[in-house]
Amino acid sequence: MVVKEYVTYNQVHKLCQEAAPRILEDFKPQLMIAIGGGGYVPARILRSFLKQPGSPNIPIQAIGLSLYEELPSTHPSGRNTPGEAEQPGTKVTRTQWLDLTSLGEMENLVGKRILIVDEVDDTRTTLEYAVKELEKDVELARQKLGGKGEKTVFSVFVLHNKNKEKKGQLPEHMLNENRYLAARTTGDVWICYPWEATDIDEHDEMAKKQPAN
Amino acid sequence: MVVKEYVTYNQVHKLCQEAAPRILEDFKPQLMIAIGGGGYVPARILRSFLKQPGSPNIPIQAIGLSLYEELPSTHPSGRNTPGEAEQPGTKVTRTQWLDLTSLGEMENLVGKRILIVDEVDDTRTTLEYAVKELEKDVELARQKLGGKGEKTVFSVFVLHNKNKEKKGQLPEHMLNENRYLAARTTGDVWICYPWEATDIDEHDEMAKKQPAN
Repeated sequence: MVVKEYVTYNQVHKLCQEAAPRILEDFKPQLMIAIGGGGYVPARILRSFLKQPGSPNIPIQAIGLSLYEELPSTHPSGRNTPGEAEQPGTKVTRTQWLDLTSLGEMENLVGKRILIVDEVDDTRTTLEYAVKELEKDVELARQKLGGKGEKTVFSVFVLHNKNKEKKGQLPEHMLNENRYLAARTTGDVWICYPWEATDIDEHDEMAKKQPAN
Repeated sequence: MVVKEYVTYNQVHKLCQEAAPRILEDFKPQLMIAIGGGGYVPARILRSFLKQPGSPNIPIQAIGLSLYEELPSTHPSGRNTPGEAEQPGTKVTRTQWLDLTSLGEMENLVGKRILIVDEVDDTRTTLEYAVKELEKDVELARQKLGGKGEKTVFSVFVLHNKNKEKKGQLPEHMLNENRYLAARTTGDVWICYPWEATDIDEHDEMAKKQPAN
């Protein structure tokens, strides 16, 4: 039996709020990269809590990644849609990537502190893809600058990390340097986010009936 | 005195739910363009309600637009950040635009039905910019195809439209063809969205105390 864990909007809001001081202190991000669609909501909420008086908002760039099932069919699995279990796939495709024009070319990422935001770290496949590809792009940009420029430092924030065997890996240095933050660690449960709920009142009721977490 | 209107997450969720049938029936979008950061949350919720059984999710592309104050200083106004009144500016700058690589070049937008999503239609400056620029980009792409290809049809969805004098204009044909949908029309109030709340419980309390809307 798949155990479902219901998370309300206000809980998501508070998870971001709770994580913000740690993010500000340790990661000091200058840019957020939201992995869509699940990263959109936490990234937007985080932006409010990361805002410093007198400073502009930390800009958000959204990227879109989709996991595809490899077998038996190869149609989009649809991450976390209502009524469908999340299907961990192994192939990641981009539906949106960074907009280099508005960023003033990739060079502007060189030497920056960047926070990657997603809802859930399930098989880690998507996160591995995002971190690897972003590190690759930034390294290329740094080399184009003649190898000058500081190292770009990526951190990761997710609402939930599922404590399970991962198919994807994050870079050793990211883990060693404590640049991975999950607001909550859960078992291998089915996390029901509010933005997937068909009936949000019923969703909240289900959340209320759960043991506190 | 500025009248504040508090909107809870669950109310936002229900506004999207309520709008979805109309959007599916009349706009039939094949792509959503979320104007960040405010459009992120409604776009992600809408995606759930627009999902058709057996079909993949409607993809979302995020764009980022910032309103800048023209005078006296020109630093980013920060749209709807906590504790700051929204400052209607007149200059819009892009912080992210469409990712043409993942979209398979702009040509893929030609002939499509596209839904632009934002949280609030205040002065209409941002929306005017988004619609005009997107229409321009798509028309250029259509001409590159030798003028062939169907017309791209843009629709707009916002959670709230403020009933006030607008600085920006939407195209006549969009309004004439009823391709603008605001879930609610309000007076010229200060709409407090939940993702801007520092204390979400207090925010919900304030919302509860308001006359029903």
